[in-house]
Amino acid sequence: MAAAVTSGPGWVLGVDSGGSGLRVALAPADAPAHAVSTASREPVRTGPGGIDAAHLLEQLLPMARTLLRRAAEAGAYGAAEAEAPGLVAVAIGAAGMATLGDDLRAVLPHALAQALGVRRVALAADAVTAYAGALDQRPGAVVAAGTGMIALGTDLTGWRRADGWGHLLGDCGGGAWIGRAGLEAAMRAHDGRRGGSAALLERLEAVFGPAEELPGLLYPRSDRPALLASFAPEVARCAADDPVARSILAGAADDIAAAAAAVCPPASSGECEVALTGGLFKMGDPLAVPLRAALAHQLPHARPVSAAGDPLAGSLTVAAALATGSLRLPRHPRMLHVSL
Amino acid sequence: MAAAVTSGPGWVLGVDSGGSGLRVALAPADAPAHAVSTASREPVRTGPGGIDAAHLLEQLLPMARTLLRRAAEAGAYGAAEAEAPGLVAVAIGAAGMATLGDDLRAVLPHALAQALGVRRVALAADAVTAYAGALDQRPGAVVAAGTGMIALGTDLTGWRRADGWGHLLGDCGGGAWIGRAGLEAAMRAHDGRRGGSAALLERLEAVFGPAEELPGLLYPRSDRPALLASFAPEVARCAADDPVARSILAGAADDIAAAAAAVCPPASSGECEVALTGGLFKMGDPLAVPLRAALAHQLPHARPVSAAGDPLAGSLTVAAALATGSLRLPRHPRMLHVSL
Repeated sequence: MAAAVTSGPGWVLGVDSGGSGLRVALAPADAPAHAVSTASREPVRTGPGGIDAAHLLEQLLPMARTLLRRAAEAGAYGAAEAEAPGLVAVAIGAAGMATLGDDLRAVLPHALAQALGVRRVALAADAVTAYAGALDQRPGAVVAAGTGMIALGTDLTGWRRADGWGHLLGDCGGGAWIGRAGLEAAMRAHDGRRGGSAALLERLEAVFGPAEELPGLLYPRSDRPALLASFAPEVARCAADDPVARSILAGAADDIAAAAAAVCPPASSGECEVALTGGLFKMGDPLAVPLRAALAHQLPHARPVSAAGDPLAGSLTVAAALATGSLRLPRHPRMLHVSL
Repeated sequence: MAAAVTSGPGWVLGVDSGGSGLRVALAPADAPAHAVSTASREPVRTGPGGIDAAHLLEQLLPMARTLLRRAAEAGAYGAAEAEAPGLVAVAIGAAGMATLGDDLRAVLPHALAQALGVRRVALAADAVTAYAGALDQRPGAVVAAGTGMIALGTDLTGWRRADGWGHLLGDCGGGAWIGRAGLEAAMRAHDGRRGGSAALLERLEAVFGPAEELPGLLYPRSDRPALLASFAPEVARCAADDPVARSILAGAADDIAAAAAAVCPPASSGECEVALTGGLFKMGDPLAVPLRAALAHQLPHARPVSAAGDPLAGSLTVAAALATGSLRLPRHPRMLHVSL
């Protein structure tokens, strides 16, 4: 550790593993915002044993070594390469970590120690890194929404989770939920059933072709939630003029607010920070306006704040906290697993 | 045809192909209710070209020959085997016929002529044989509901269809729809979100185990709709005491009535027969009571009637009509395809 003391607090590595691939970032432990990063477009495989640790390592190790070499060459800390303080902590946030992370938890701490000489390893659910990215280590609630939707809250003594149960059991108000409701309303219009939307039917046919052929397009695919979610922006586009589309988004807003309300710590301090993060919120006003109203109604003590950063930034936050012994976010065997 | 005239109008074969296997029935063309039947438990395979005609024939031909031999031995029509009038028509109702029936339509008419000497062949969507089973050849509307839900109506000049779009795009009010809504309400209760039902959560845990492990049970399966539908009876069981379960069934009743209303022929004759058929309606009063109210409200000119028979009986009805030149149900290239 002597070298680390003389030449800085060392490096931390943050990882975000999800459906679109692996993102990796390296930053000084005392300045996690000053990161360099790289990405692969190959999502880590999920096998019968859950997320495949070997496949993750196969991608992660060369990316980590490249970033470390690049940082050393840039002469960070003004130190020569030989004196570089090295990697002191890694945090990996992964979609499915809670339910499919057994292989990662069994393999990664030892493998990362061997390959990169790092002993401080955090394995986090992607909702936890989304939380840390949005609110750092402050108490509050974070809603992460893209294709799916999950809310996570903490008073720093434990985690509360709401939804995130997938497109058949929940994810209420997320992209697949909104898109599915929009397509259902379009099919109602196609059949002449009540509750249908001619505007959404027109968008369905513009995007997917004849309505009666949509089942044949959708059901054989393995990425059905993503296909459903791809229709969510069409629902937003119709909301200005179409009451059915508008009521779908109002329902989504109510469900998102309900999830936030379920996880928000009690209002002992008078208020609770609530941050929204993820691709769904790029939809803008058609969702943002009813969501503000729903939060004000269901969670009057909430203070909506902007998410400071994304889940990759959150994984660096966790890694830096681990490196400097300042981790305040609660540990949890499946949500935030820590090895020292 | 001389032999047929002297010894009776001949035999007709009805087939019902669905998710639980193949059912085959043989009856005299002039008395389709007097059938003998047999069944296989192997569902016909669906491949890249749709429902596999060769796999269907492989099962159907031996079953048909067995039934014909049994009928001949029983000495129907008092005729000796040599004078037996033979098979004059076949009707095959199959789940997926409309969208996945191209191979069947291309192969079966010729193959059945060669193998069984029969030239009159009808290939029908299972909703059409459900219709014929329920209402024979009278105009009206039929709702067929089990895991899914579809409504079909005719004024005998054409077909109107509503829903039947599968568990992600519709099937509103069907078994998977009810079960899914019940499980979602259970997960809401688990998370402490509003709109949850503690009673349904208790049933979820009794049936599937810990709530947080349900996603891991459900999503890897290929028969997700069937698993969702397996929870529908639990929703019915809770309805007496649980307002959330009751409102799920009221919503299902509204959607089923809406589908019936969309396909019911106009009330030119003053009223329209509406029949309900399929396993969902075995649920009894928890669904039947709100459904009666919804039909009375949305479809005041409807006269609810009992379904006379099931889809297998309906395929015999179609085959008998074909044999005797009395088919009144409208032909349709994908719903009711006829070769003579």
